[in-house]
Amino acid sequence: MSVNLPALDDVLAVPGVRLATSAAAIKHSQRDDIALLVLAEGSTVSGVFTRSSFRAAPVQVAETRIAKGGIRALIINSGNANAATGEPGMQDALAMCARVEQLLELERESVIPFSTGVIGERLPMERMISALSVAQGQLSDDHWPAAARAIMTTDTEPKALSRVVPVAGQSVTITGMAKGAGMIKPDMATMLAFICCDASIEASCLHELIREVAEKSFNRITVDGDTSTNDSFVVCATAMAGQSRISSSQDTAYQELRDGILSVALELAHRLVRDAEGATKFVTVRVSGGAEPWECLAVAYTIAESPLVKTAMFAGDANWGRFCMAIGRAGIPDLDTAGVALFLDDVCVAKNGLIAPDYEDAQGSAVMAQDEYVVRVELGRGGFEEVVWTSDLSHEYIRVNSEYRT
Amino acid sequence: MSVNLPALDDVLAVPGVRLATSAAAIKHSQRDDIALLVLAEGSTVSGVFTRSSFRAAPVQVAETRIAKGGIRALIINSGNANAATGEPGMQDALAMCARVEQLLELERESVIPFSTGVIGERLPMERMISALSVAQGQLSDDHWPAAARAIMTTDTEPKALSRVVPVAGQSVTITGMAKGAGMIKPDMATMLAFICCDASIEASCLHELIREVAEKSFNRITVDGDTSTNDSFVVCATAMAGQSRISSSQDTAYQELRDGILSVALELAHRLVRDAEGATKFVTVRVSGGAEPWECLAVAYTIAESPLVKTAMFAGDANWGRFCMAIGRAGIPDLDTAGVALFLDDVCVAKNGLIAPDYEDAQGSAVMAQDEYVVRVELGRGGFEEVVWTSDLSHEYIRVNSEYRT
Repeated sequence: MSVNLPALDDVLAVPGVRLATSAAAIKHSQRDDIALLVLAEGSTVSGVFTRSSFRAAPVQVAETRIAKGGIRALIINSGNANAATGEPGMQDALAMCARVEQLLELERESVIPFSTGVIGERLPMERMISALSVAQGQLSDDHWPAAARAIMTTDTEPKALSRVVPVAGQSVTITGMAKGAGMIKPDMATMLAFICCDASIEASCLHELIREVAEKSFNRITVDGDTSTNDSFVVCATAMAGQSRISSSQDTAYQELRDGILSVALELAHRLVRDAEGATKFVTVRVSGGAEPWECLAVAYTIAESPLVKTAMFAGDANWGRFCMAIGRAGIPDLDTAGVALFLDDVCVAKNGLIAPDYEDAQGSAVMAQDEYVVRVELGRGGFEEVVWTSDLSHEYIRVNSEYRT
Repeated sequence: MSVNLPALDDVLAVPGVRLATSAAAIKHSQRDDIALLVLAEGSTVSGVFTRSSFRAAPVQVAETRIAKGGIRALIINSGNANAATGEPGMQDALAMCARVEQLLELERESVIPFSTGVIGERLPMERMISALSVAQGQLSDDHWPAAARAIMTTDTEPKALSRVVPVAGQSVTITGMAKGAGMIKPDMATMLAFICCDASIEASCLHELIREVAEKSFNRITVDGDTSTNDSFVVCATAMAGQSRISSSQDTAYQELRDGILSVALELAHRLVRDAEGATKFVTVRVSGGAEPWECLAVAYTIAESPLVKTAMFAGDANWGRFCMAIGRAGIPDLDTAGVALFLDDVCVAKNGLIAPDYEDAQGSAVMAQDEYVVRVELGRGGFEEVVWTSDLSHEYIRVNSEYRT
């Protein structure tokens, strides 16, 4: 089940990035569940990670190593999150990386690990070590689709796409892939997202760029308000495109690259929501008129995460009462409800805090019968606006999540 | 569907309280949907109300009038919440009260209104006014069960019970009723709860008492994290029991009465959870070892409201990963996960932040296969403890809430 999820686009190789996949039978046999991604020397890498107190071992390793620099490869597995596994789990994560360093003759601590899947269980290290040897022999710059497939968990389809954008007059290729369909919420999701490009950029600038991009893409989606122990979003830049190196966020080239990467990140984020567990709707929640940005976000998330609103979305029921319940409990101090309006696409459902005089249920129901639509709330107390994207809460969500381990 | 919900107990009349019900066909025909509750002169009344920005008209009227004092009657309807109805809705609420004042020859502004049901629609005032006349002719002190039935919305059964407790050496009768099965969350729930007793107590003491009681009962339950526009909890004391008037919260009599009322409130609160929309489990979430009470509550609510944990409860899946995900995202600063333990009833699932060495899945599954059990989290960083009660997230929740208006 998914909502207008595009098939893999024409995914472009990124100069300086080689990939391979292999099968370690971590959770399922008969599918590749390991992806290896090798970067050219001189690449810069940055990442943002979950804020969970239970941060998985691989997250801790990746964050520390990215801060030191010199990253040359990423090793990613699905089927097991290597989270809440304590010191043994940490040793497993380090051993995975050490094996890749040895196979590819890379510097120590130049490989970073990523894991996604079941929490609290040890990785099958023997099978994984063997699988790494197999992967090493198959590195190629055109294996993005296979890699996007190998990192999937409950995703119904792989998610990857490319953009070519001009940066400082040179063509830069940006290719990204992501996985994650439940436990999705800002800061961040059970989500792994990797975007590579061949631009040349200082690590400090890339750190700034990834924060800007995450804030406007992956940190604006929510499926169920749950946040995973393993969420990671990484951007790699191989410096093969030949433009002059970006060294300041004031550079026009920085903005060109950021906009290109944001475009890929936003599309990947939307695809995660389109493929959310049990999703039958892709809903944009736009809240304007806040006195502060946080007010808009608080209302948007309360709507996007309310089980009652989400079941109304599933039912296609234009239930003003549930929206006003959610707006009412969002914690906006002294909200004058007489200034609140609600639109479903262009249909004005409520204004001045009341159902609009000429509104008829059939109009709202027609909007909510669509696969995709916009819920717009106007708070009438300021000039800020924020947008989040979400899915509905369906029988299928319950089915997927009550049967996940069985 | 409900979890070990007791039938109506032997509900006792409270001296000084007369009740009546009648049918106004507000949403359904062929059932009573109005309850009238009349208090003896000299009664004291207090209430706590929703903090939603969209507070319904009846909530605004009731809160203002309770603050002024002299309340003699409560008029309650189900089927329509009279919320987000603006100035016309306010006029309707006032008109309902005025009609009761006229019928019963009571002082102006001595009647308080309560409504629950669909949001954003006008009340059928003509039918309601007629129904009030019918109700007036049927007032009796033994109509508690009928009243508990009349205020139901998606509840499967009425909820009412009594306790007789000694207060300052006199027997005091406490009888309460409540409704509400979804949109349930502290501060407060789509919940109406009314407790009457024949104790004699100063209004200022009763205000203090109701806040204490609400905090430990209705404000500790959550079904879906949603909060309604109409939540109200009211305590009435008719002063007919003959004990000396309670005038200070330091009095032993105050504490006796508070404990008696808390006992009724807690049992009503539990019944709301047992009858939660789609509930198949009644789960107590107990979090100890917090450095502050709010830490315990934050972890308890994150567990109790996580869609992923709630679907695991529905499935009876002892999924440590989901609990640790929820604990991890609860926002406890610098939580040392190595101090965290999880118990399901007496089974230690995890300690020191890891699955317990001798734990086997079958043990946890056996606990979660029960209708009722305790999830206990030890945070290992202080001496505070808090408890909340919740239900699971089932297919039935989705069905009830996606079909509610149709």
